[in-house]
Amino acid sequence: MISNPFEVSGFLFSGISSGIKKDGKKDLGLIYSEIPAQVAGLFTTNRVKAAPVLIDMERIKEGLCQAVLINSGNANACTGTQGVKEAERIASLLAQRMGIEDRYVLLSSTGVIGVPLPVKKIEQGLPELIKKLSPEGWMNVVESIMTTDTHPKMKWATCRIKGKQVRLCGMVKGAGMIRPNLATMLSFLVTDAHIKATLLQEMLREATEASYNRITIDGETSTNDTVLLLANGKAGHPLLNRMDREAKTFRQMLIEVCRGLAESIVRDGEGATKYIEIMIRGARSRMDAQKAAYAIAHSPLVKTAFFGEDANWGRILCALGHCDIPLNPARIDLFFDKTPIVKNGMGVGRRLEARAAQVIKKRAFRVTVDLHQGKSSFSLLTTDLSLDYVKINASYRS
Amino acid sequence: MISNPFEVSGFLFSGISSGIKKDGKKDLGLIYSEIPAQVAGLFTTNRVKAAPVLIDMERIKEGLCQAVLINSGNANACTGTQGVKEAERIASLLAQRMGIEDRYVLLSSTGVIGVPLPVKKIEQGLPELIKKLSPEGWMNVVESIMTTDTHPKMKWATCRIKGKQVRLCGMVKGAGMIRPNLATMLSFLVTDAHIKATLLQEMLREATEASYNRITIDGETSTNDTVLLLANGKAGHPLLNRMDREAKTFRQMLIEVCRGLAESIVRDGEGATKYIEIMIRGARSRMDAQKAAYAIAHSPLVKTAFFGEDANWGRILCALGHCDIPLNPARIDLFFDKTPIVKNGMGVGRRLEARAAQVIKKRAFRVTVDLHQGKSSFSLLTTDLSLDYVKINASYRS
Repeated sequence: MISNPFEVSGFLFSGISSGIKKDGKKDLGLIYSEIPAQVAGLFTTNRVKAAPVLIDMERIKEGLCQAVLINSGNANACTGTQGVKEAERIASLLAQRMGIEDRYVLLSSTGVIGVPLPVKKIEQGLPELIKKLSPEGWMNVVESIMTTDTHPKMKWATCRIKGKQVRLCGMVKGAGMIRPNLATMLSFLVTDAHIKATLLQEMLREATEASYNRITIDGETSTNDTVLLLANGKAGHPLLNRMDREAKTFRQMLIEVCRGLAESIVRDGEGATKYIEIMIRGARSRMDAQKAAYAIAHSPLVKTAFFGEDANWGRILCALGHCDIPLNPARIDLFFDKTPIVKNGMGVGRRLEARAAQVIKKRAFRVTVDLHQGKSSFSLLTTDLSLDYVKINASYRS
Repeated sequence: MISNPFEVSGFLFSGISSGIKKDGKKDLGLIYSEIPAQVAGLFTTNRVKAAPVLIDMERIKEGLCQAVLINSGNANACTGTQGVKEAERIASLLAQRMGIEDRYVLLSSTGVIGVPLPVKKIEQGLPELIKKLSPEGWMNVVESIMTTDTHPKMKWATCRIKGKQVRLCGMVKGAGMIRPNLATMLSFLVTDAHIKATLLQEMLREATEASYNRITIDGETSTNDTVLLLANGKAGHPLLNRMDREAKTFRQMLIEVCRGLAESIVRDGEGATKYIEIMIRGARSRMDAQKAAYAIAHSPLVKTAFFGEDANWGRILCALGHCDIPLNPARIDLFFDKTPIVKNGMGVGRRLEARAAQVIKKRAFRVTVDLHQGKSSFSLLTTDLSLDYVKINASYRS
């Protein structure tokens, strides 16, 4: 029996400080599988992609991975071909030292864009990083990938597949530059389940759609977003197939873990004081519902009103009005949690508005919009826009 | 000879405090033309339109206007059919008292959305408002339309048309909820030129395209945006036709005045400490250039970096990368004023970066992006995102 919930058979973890971060905090992490693991991955949709993303997108096609090397403090983005070469060299050095195949090493970086990767520091850190690999090292990796995160973020779950207990552990970093199609966000998941890369990829895509692609903090999609899921099969059950009953169980578990991780990002949103679900109902299509939800979630005026605990619903209607979907303003209903605040496009009066004002004093609440245009819906999680968001981001590099 | 530059033959102005604004500041303004003037107007593209906008869009079709009644402190938006009825009733009362046609009265409102218009207060204010009409009352109207503006905004110009001196005076309000396709912005322009409404509309559209549609503060398009241009022909020159040499002169003058007014909005952007021109060059199409410019101008991370005087160009590239236009990151050049900071998608090194860091310490500067994809360009004006923007908007209604 495993006593630490963040141990997964056959995986070793390590995280150290290599001096990339000025404050001496951990900045280099390593996830290692004793045997090449099946791997699935999703990457940023930003057209400006960091060097490690470019490398991983190529390497992952083979479906196998044995080591993931992650650094924080430097994004290795907008660093040109030099950035790619240097990342490949680092991967090579790691592979040599560990006696594994170059192409089974994946890379991930997060931090400042446009500064050459401090390769010397990473190179010098590798021996210690490898030496410290341990089944109990999970927390060290989590710490090494943090940037503006105020606390480590991780989730785990277990299920049974074909008579064997299977474990899934996930970590995530991210607190700003967070928006759909992955956030500025790194997430690494490992499991001892026995699943082929193709099915794994399908499952990861589905789980990401239901989790990381439904959060937004500031509407920014980073150059480095990466989600990786490694499955080494060490749980010892026969290969899981798409049609197996337990495939559904695993899918569900993966969604739960990813949702939990996505929520933890929003709860730790840069400077966030509010944690808000935006739910759009009655849209003509899912795309319309999505556009409407993001229009609200990205409106600086809505977000600052939430920060000010001002039930200024007019700003929500205004945001809906310029989001470029067909709209009948006179049919819109709006609720803060279950309290109606707008009915048929108009305020419901002072008494209910006063009750709605109480709702947004809570740390977490839901804004529901019913467009009464159709049957589609979409929901996402977001934060307010606070003074601290500006403070954090005005001085990020200094 | 007119001694006050903001006097225009045949126009009278008035502005008073009617008690809509809690602080006793002016909140009701009136622009009156002694004879029905030719009128052109442009209105918000937000699908949620305020009552006065709905009324004006209908009335302006006739091309004539004799009075514009404006209130601040209440937007009369999201107030349903009741809001429209009440606005019409107010217009009717004004028309009766002034002995002019109902349909020659246009209306404009700005302020909080979703609160019923305080019709009683406006009604009670009308006699004083009318009584105070004066050729020198311009400044009172300007003050009566201000909301979060920190100072009055106006421009004037003159030109000669067919031997007569023509005057054009414009005012504008707006400091937040500012984005293309008109900003949250009211602008009223009056001229004594003799121009038919159809040509006037064409000229106003062109001038708006070159001015108000090229500024953005927070990416929000309001429910109330309105630009009106009244021309009463009192300058006494023969009708100006589209093909007249002086039509070009007038167009140019109108563009200059609108540009000046648009710039003054950005310079007074809510909480703004920086005034930034974003210039995109080398795009495949004007639309691409426009998308790229707005992606940068609306990025909270770029805007907070400007506020922090941090030459964090990586955020600019990141914003470009997720703006959904074809992009070759390795060909992008970036300049702060004339100082290069990115060449072929990569940083130019510490020495130049230090110089670029000096540029963004200035109150006003230009960010130029060359995409090297084609020959189209677009530029716009924007601001940073400061602590004060959040403070102003977190407490707007309280």
